[in-house]
Amino acid sequence: MLSEYIAIKALENGVTLIGLTRGRETKLTHTEKLDKGEVMLAQFTENTSAMKIRGKAVIYTRFGNIETFTE
Amino acid sequence: MLSEYIAIKALENGVTLIGLTRGRETKLTHTEKLDKGEVMLAQFTENTSAMKIRGKAVIYTRFGNIETFTE
Amino acid sequence: MLSEYIAIKALENGVTLIGLTRGRETKLTHTEKLDKGEVMLAQFTENTSAMKIRGKAVIYTRFGNIETFTE
Amino acid sequence: MLSEYIAIKALENGVTLIGLTRGRETKLTHTEKLDKGEVMLAQFTENTSAMKIRGKAVIYTRFGNIETFTE
Amino acid sequence: MLSEYIAIKALENGVTLIGLTRGRETKLTHTEKLDKGEVMLAQFTENTSAMKIRGKAVIYTRFGNIETFTE
Amino acid sequence: MLSEYIAIKALENGVTLIGLTRGRETKLTHTEKLDKGEVMLAQFTENTSAMKIRGKAVIYTRFGNIETFTE
Amino acid sequence: MLSEYIAIKALENGVTLIGLTRGRETKLTHTEKLDKGEVMLAQFTENTSAMKIRGKAVIYTRFGNIETFTE
Amino acid sequence: MLSEYIAIKALENGVTLIGLTRGRETKLTHTEKLDKGEVMLAQFTENTSAMKIRGKAVIYTRFGNIETFTE
Amino acid sequence: MLSEYIAIKALENGVTLIGLTRGRETKLTHTEKLDKGEVMLAQFTENTSAMKIRGKAVIYTRFGNIETFTE
Amino acid sequence: MLSEYIAIKALENGVTLIGLTRGRETKLTHTEKLDKGEVMLAQFTENTSAMKIRGKAVIYTRFGNIETFTE
Amino acid sequence: MLSEYIAIKALENGVTLIGLTRGRETKLTHTEKLDKGEVMLAQFTENTSAMKIRGKAVIYTRFGNIETFTE
Amino acid sequence: MLSEYIAIKALENGVTLIGLTRGRETKLTHTEKLDKGEVMLAQFTENTSAMKIRGKAVIYTRFGNIETFTE
Repeated sequence: MLSEYIAIKALENGVTLIGLTRGRETKLTHTEKLDKGEVMLAQFTENTSAMKIRGKAVIYTRFGNIETFTE
Repeated sequence: MLSEYIAIKALENGVTLIGLTRGRETKLTHTEKLDKGEVMLAQFTENTSAMKIRGKAVIYTRFGNIETFTE
Repeated sequence: MLSEYIAIKALENGVTLIGLTRGRETKLTHTEKLDKGEVMLAQFTENTSAMKIRGKAVIYTRFGNIETFTE
Repeated sequence: MLSEYIAIKALENGVTLIGLTRGRETKLTHTEKLDKGEVMLAQFTENTSAMKIRGKAVIYTRFGNIETFTE
Repeated sequence: MLSEYIAIKALENGVTLIGLTRGRETKLTHTEKLDKGEVMLAQFTENTSAMKIRGKAVIYTRFGNIETFTE
Repeated sequence: MLSEYIAIKALENGVTLIGLTRGRETKLTHTEKLDKGEVMLAQFTENTSAMKIRGKAVIYTRFGNIETFTE
Repeated sequence: MLSEYIAIKALENGVTLIGLTRGRETKLTHTEKLDKGEVMLAQFTENTSAMKIRGKAVIYTRFGNIETFTE
Repeated sequence: MLSEYIAIKALENGVTLIGLTRGRETKLTHTEKLDKGEVMLAQFTENTSAMKIRGKAVIYTRFGNIETFTE
Repeated sequence: MLSEYIAIKALENGVTLIGLTRGRETKLTHTEKLDKGEVMLAQFTENTSAMKIRGKAVIYTRFGNIETFTE
Repeated sequence: MLSEYIAIKALENGVTLIGLTRGRETKLTHTEKLDKGEVMLAQFTENTSAMKIRGKAVIYTRFGNIETFTE
Repeated sequence: MLSEYIAIKALENGVTLIGLTRGRETKLTHTEKLDKGEVMLAQFTENTSAMKIRGKAVIYTRFGNIETFTE
Repeated sequence: MLSEYIAIKALENGVTLIGLTRGRETKLTHTEKLDKGEVMLAQFTENTSAMKIRGKAVIYTRFGNIETFTE
């Protein structure tokens, strides 16, 4: 419950947050769809040790804000 | 009890705070409706490891204030 | 006993502080009414992991002061 | 014994500090009356997770000083 | 032994420091009289979770110095 | 769950994040492909103690941002 | 052994440091007399949770220096 | 999982990261080859208490960036 | 072993450092004589919870340097 | 695994890092040779409590950078 | 092993560092002689809770440098 | 393994680092000779609670750099 959380704001419809498992084999734990303007807060958990973000979004992290698709 | 809390202020009626489960399968734990001007304080818990916010709102987080719908 | 507390000052009569349960099912734990000018200090507890504030009030939090009804 | 304390200074006679219980049901634990100019220091305890202050007073908290009745 | 202490300096004879119990029922644990100019250092303890100060005094706390009777 | 995470933003299609095992023998735990603009957040885990990044990417670390291919 | 200590410097002969017990009943644990110019360092202990200082002295505390008799 | 990580960026093909064992006898645990521009993040582990870097590279450490071959 | 130490420098012959016991009854644990210019470093211990310094000396404490006999 | 590491950069061929044992008798645990420009990161371990560096090198430590042979 | 250390530099031959025991009775644990220019680093230990320094020396402590014999 | 280390740079041949035992009786644990320009890193250990440095050297400590023989 004390693990860090990150925040994601979708900048378009259909942004995807994909959780990946912590175990020996890395599998998908969950896929969450966000519509434009929605915000999601998510922690790393006992089951999820990695997250992948697809689609135009801002990700709020300990390293500052990271925007997808902004070369 | 020591886990972090976030705050949400609804900027319109019908803002939704959706809790998502911590377990192997990610399910909805709870949906809370907020009317315009109401404020909610919520912790991550043993059962809730993610939250999704829909509707015009300000979310107060460790990364500062995040507004939904504000491209 | 070491969990964080927040403070609420009612700016009108009938401000409501609603506690929501920590368990698998989110239920109301308690509803407290505050009259104009009264101040309440409240901790997150073993039973309460979320709070909802209705009515004109200032909420003192780790994110600063949040006023309800102040678009 | 290590839990935080707050301080209250009564600015008029009859300021009331009401303790509310930590348990599943929220009840009054104690009511303390303060006369004008008296100061009370109080900790959150195993039994008390919320406090309500009525009457003209200054409350010294981690969020700074909060005055009741000062719209 | 590691709990916080506060300090009280009496500014007149007969300043009273009243200790209140930590248990389910809040009772007096102790009453200490201070004469003008005397200083008392007191910790919160297993038995005392609240203190009340009556009479002209300065109380040294984590919130700074609080003077009684100084509207 | 409390271990540090890093973030990776792919600057081209086919960026590869390769996890390496913590055990006595260092083996691949997982290979994740990222397309241009996608962002991945990943923790060190019980199984993964090293990660290798191939392809044009920015890696957000405790040492600042590290870009691959930028002599 | 890790508990905080305070220091007292007597500014006249016969300064008294009175220790008060931590238990359910508050009793005197010890009375120490200091002559002019002597310095005493004292910790809160398993037995002593409060100290009272009588006579002209400077007390060095976490709140700074507190002088007795200095209205 | 909480141990520190370092980062290595290869500035030429064939940079080698050699892990050395923590045990009574110091042996090679692993040898990892990095091509030009690749980045590796690696933790000290239960098995690896030392690392040796050969070839033109930048190593990101708690002491700042250390470049090999840059007299 | 981790408890705080203080330092004392004797400014004349015959400076006395008197240790007082931690137990229910406060007794002398030890008396140490310092000659002019000698320095003593002393920790609070399982047996000693208070120290008294007599004679012209500088005491180095967490509150800064305290000189005896320097009205 | 959480113990501190130091870094060594060899400024000539044949720099030697000698590990010395933690036990009652101090013996050599390991000797590592570094060629010019190579970098080594090494932790203190259950077996190694001292290290000796011979030959022209820079050692990165909590005290800053220490160069051998630079009178 | 984690207890604090102090350092002593002898400014003349025959500087003495005397260790005093931690136990109920304070006895000498050890006497170490330092010649001019020698440096000694010493920790407080399970057996030693006080140290006395005789002779012209600089003592490096958490309170800064203390010189003996420098009225 | 987490105890502090110090560093010593020999400024002449034959600098001696002498380890002294932690036990009830203080004995030599080890004597290490350093030649001019060599650097040694050493931790306090279960067996060593004091170190003595003889010969022209710089010692890097938590109190800054201490040079032997530099009156």
